Amino acid sequence: MEIRPGLNPASEVPLYRQLSVYLHRLIESGELRAGDRLPPTRELAGQLGLNRTTVSAAYELLETHGLIKGEVGRGSYVSGAGNSGAANALRTVQDEHLKWSRLLTPSVAPPAPPAAPGVISFTNSRPSDNLFPIEEFRASCLEVLASPNMKALLQLGSPGGYEPLRRFLLDRAVAQGVARVGDDILITNGCQQALDLLRRSLVRPGDKVAMEDPVYPGLRNLFLESGAELIGIPVGRQGLDPVALQRAFDAGARLVVVTPSFQNPTGATMPADHRVAICSMARAAGAAIIENDIYSELSCALPDSRSPALPRLKKLDGNVILLGSFSKVAFPGVRVGWIIGPRPVIARATELKQLADLHTDHLSQAFLLHFAQSGRLAAHEAHVLEAAREKLRALEESCRSHLSDCTWNIPSGGMNIWIGLPAGLDAVSLRGLAQQAGIDYLPGRYFAVSRAQDSGLRLSFAGLEPGEIREGIRILGSLIQRAVGLRGVAAQSPALAMV
Amino acid sequence: MEIRPGLNPASEVPLYRQLSVYLHRLIESGELRAGDRLPPTRELAGQLGLNRTTVSAAYELLETHGLIKGEVGRGSYVSGAGNSGAANALRTVQDEHLKWSRLLTPSVAPPAPPAAPGVISFTNSRPSDNLFPIEEFRASCLEVLASPNMKALLQLGSPGGYEPLRRFLLDRAVAQGVARVGDDILITNGCQQALDLLRRSLVRPGDKVAMEDPVYPGLRNLFLESGAELIGIPVGRQGLDPVALQRAFDAGARLVVVTPSFQNPTGATMPADHRVAICSMARAAGAAIIENDIYSELSCALPDSRSPALPRLKKLDGNVILLGSFSKVAFPGVRVGWIIGPRPVIARATELKQLADLHTDHLSQAFLLHFAQSGRLAAHEAHVLEAAREKLRALEESCRSHLSDCTWNIPSGGMNIWIGLPAGLDAVSLRGLAQQAGIDYLPGRYFAVSRAQDSGLRLSFAGLEPGEIREGIRILGSLIQRAVGLRGVAAQSPALAMV
Repeated sequence: MEIRPGLNPASEVPLYRQLSVYLHRLIESGELRAGDRLPPTRELAGQLGLNRTTVSAAYELLETHGLIKGEVGRGSYVSGAGNSGAANALRTVQDEHLKWSRLLTPSVAPPAPPAAPGVISFTNSRPSDNLFPIEEFRASCLEVLASPNMKALLQLGSPGGYEPLRRFLLDRAVAQGVARVGDDILITNGCQQALDLLRRSLVRPGDKVAMEDPVYPGLRNLFLESGAELIGIPVGRQGLDPVALQRAFDAGARLVVVTPSFQNPTGATMPADHRVAICSMARAAGAAIIENDIYSELSCALPDSRSPALPRLKKLDGNVILLGSFSKVAFPGVRVGWIIGPRPVIARATELKQLADLHTDHLSQAFLLHFAQSGRLAAHEAHVLEAAREKLRALEESCRSHLSDCTWNIPSGGMNIWIGLPAGLDAVSLRGLAQQAGIDYLPGRYFAVSRAQDSGLRLSFAGLEPGEIREGIRILGSLIQRAVGLRGVAAQSPALAMV
Repeated sequence: MEIRPGLNPASEVPLYRQLSVYLHRLIESGELRAGDRLPPTRELAGQLGLNRTTVSAAYELLETHGLIKGEVGRGSYVSGAGNSGAANALRTVQDEHLKWSRLLTPSVAPPAPPAAPGVISFTNSRPSDNLFPIEEFRASCLEVLASPNMKALLQLGSPGGYEPLRRFLLDRAVAQGVARVGDDILITNGCQQALDLLRRSLVRPGDKVAMEDPVYPGLRNLFLESGAELIGIPVGRQGLDPVALQRAFDAGARLVVVTPSFQNPTGATMPADHRVAICSMARAAGAAIIENDIYSELSCALPDSRSPALPRLKKLDGNVILLGSFSKVAFPGVRVGWIIGPRPVIARATELKQLADLHTDHLSQAFLLHFAQSGRLAAHEAHVLEAAREKLRALEESCRSHLSDCTWNIPSGGMNIWIGLPAGLDAVSLRGLAQQAGIDYLPGRYFAVSRAQDSGLRLSFAGLEPGEIREGIRILGSLIQRAVGLRGVAAQSPALAMV
């Protein structure tokens, strides 16, 4: 069995991960079987021109997933676990498998760390289902199902979306001063598909794309898959750094994706002058802006005369491509989002939408439209914001009480907050302890674009109750304090260090 | 108020326009307010290192749009108008569009010819909505909506699909001998998305991909967009030509997409021995097969001992990747399809599904599952097949009576039939006359891969009533006869030729 992983040192994905993905695939495809011995790390490292620790790290990752087993003095073997149980019956089929590892396109997305079960989980940027207005939504569904329109809803529709929903959203955007006469709209399966269609519309392999760093991994991975060269723009308390963005434009980036309000994962919001600045910069550079606006409606700030509501970038510049969704305010399981942007962009994205899946599900479009038009969505939103204020209060109090060694900035809305750990602590190492102690979060590394982000972590609080937030942050704080203490000890006695 | 427009002399946009956009934006964002005085042109020009006429031109533009007002001897002031009428703001935006034609990726898909309204339309390969069992489907929806499961359905789900639906479909496929233990399933937004995800999983730019010729354009265009080199395999009465497929494998194709039953657009079905042959050929070549199986359940043939039901390719070879959908048997507007295939393929496609749109809409998955489990889908299918037999009879009688100059092969099911025109006639030219005469169809050219297909056309009959099929084909037949007659005349007098 020859091991030829074809590693890419220029990739964002660390080499050990590329190697482990490759080996994983060999095991899955049956090219490596239960009982097969893997080459010793030293040997494989020599063969591939890698550092031995890279190979060891790859083996460790596979061992964590139960795919291989190390035996002292004997080396590493493919374990039965991967193919176990039902899979044994497979053997005959396995025998005749095509070499899928050669046929499949390589994965560039580092796998998401699995969330721990049964703990207070800060891992998911999603709404609390305790707040779902199930009766009200059901009522909207029943009204749609009883309408004489059902025949048309069940029949094939238009790639651009369900016309009444398109009109409703576009009218609303015009009333908000966000959509202009040169704009059009495309309905998508949530914001994720909006990003995917725009990627296909605007990015060629090798193109430079600027995005916040850290950033939502579903966005980063999407652009990585398309062969784009990512330029991570640091995010501070005021969101994306305009100076670094200008450098990215100077370096040739012609697209930036930005979440100006309650960015995921940092929770940061850009002030008005930065918003104006990046629109000017993009225009001068001839670059497109994708404005990911899925969190701004979750703002608990009460605009007053001193701090008026922050304008969407789309309001400042008609060239901006605006993404919206019902998933964060209403229901993530009902997949409806949209793109509002200049007509040529929407025309191209709509063409690609037709190729991607013909059109978004009709029933969901009609249900959500009715839910919005009936006023039930607005009532739900008010209810969500009321609950959010309590959560933010719990967040602020707990951070003050328990995370005094860390850096953080309480957002005035959204779903996420970024915690900077004290110097020397590492969010990945800390996570194992956190899971044991009854909480879970996602380490900063998972959101990294061009920088390591190892000393940060994301807490997604919107899905939790205030009491859970308090208890979770109390646990996190005590873990951090202990780790900070041990860090001192570790400096004297390396054996004790665990971070 | 500092004015720092960050002008770009290298831009396509003239400097005065860049400046006016910048100032416009300051006004829109409230940084410059009604009554604020702009710097004198001479002063601003000096400050920015511009020619004074550039600044004057920018001010004039703003004045034209009512955003500023010049007063003799006093300078220019921001007027109130800028923040009012939305249409005013528009005007400039229209003027300053980004050069989208340079930023957007090029379209490779020839646009679909628009269908004529108010005619007997053979243009759409979709079910008849007259047959939709709306009451029965509504009943299933209501049962799902009343279930205690609603909270989970409205929350974020799994990229692989709604677990009960996955299990139902996989169990059914196992019972049919189609899925094996090494297989897994992914729920998609209909079959179109299944194709898209498999394209991303299996095709790199420049890869050779074999497909039927003619073929459904949504399939061809998808692979064209990915930069694949398409090899069209001629389709005859017995479907795809195995000899040509072998040549494609010899030429380096490692993927073939095939619709063995009731192919779109030809309606052709592969006999059993061809099915066995292409599985063997693909295996020997180390190539993957995607089996597009969305029409086989629409078979009106009654299998008997002499002609048993034709096996799916997936039953013959576990490596085959099988695509299914509810869209052709039930409702195209509810977007649910699936992929059943070897685990490594499903793993990669699922990863891409998450990047594409997180997961398929939950409600639709639950509705269709309930519709199937309650037995309502099977009852509907029986009803559809009963109606289909009548349509096929109408098709056969009409083709015999009116298309005796053409070639055709009545399928035993599906939705489409291919009509070969008499020599010298062209389906594109004939279409204009057909629309005037009250019918519409799609010309063969629209389905072409490597061959012109100009002398063929597709009739999609499933959405029409038997009476419409008879009347439509009668009209088509008389047009063809007239054209054949004129063709003779044209040979003598070129001026009269219209095809």
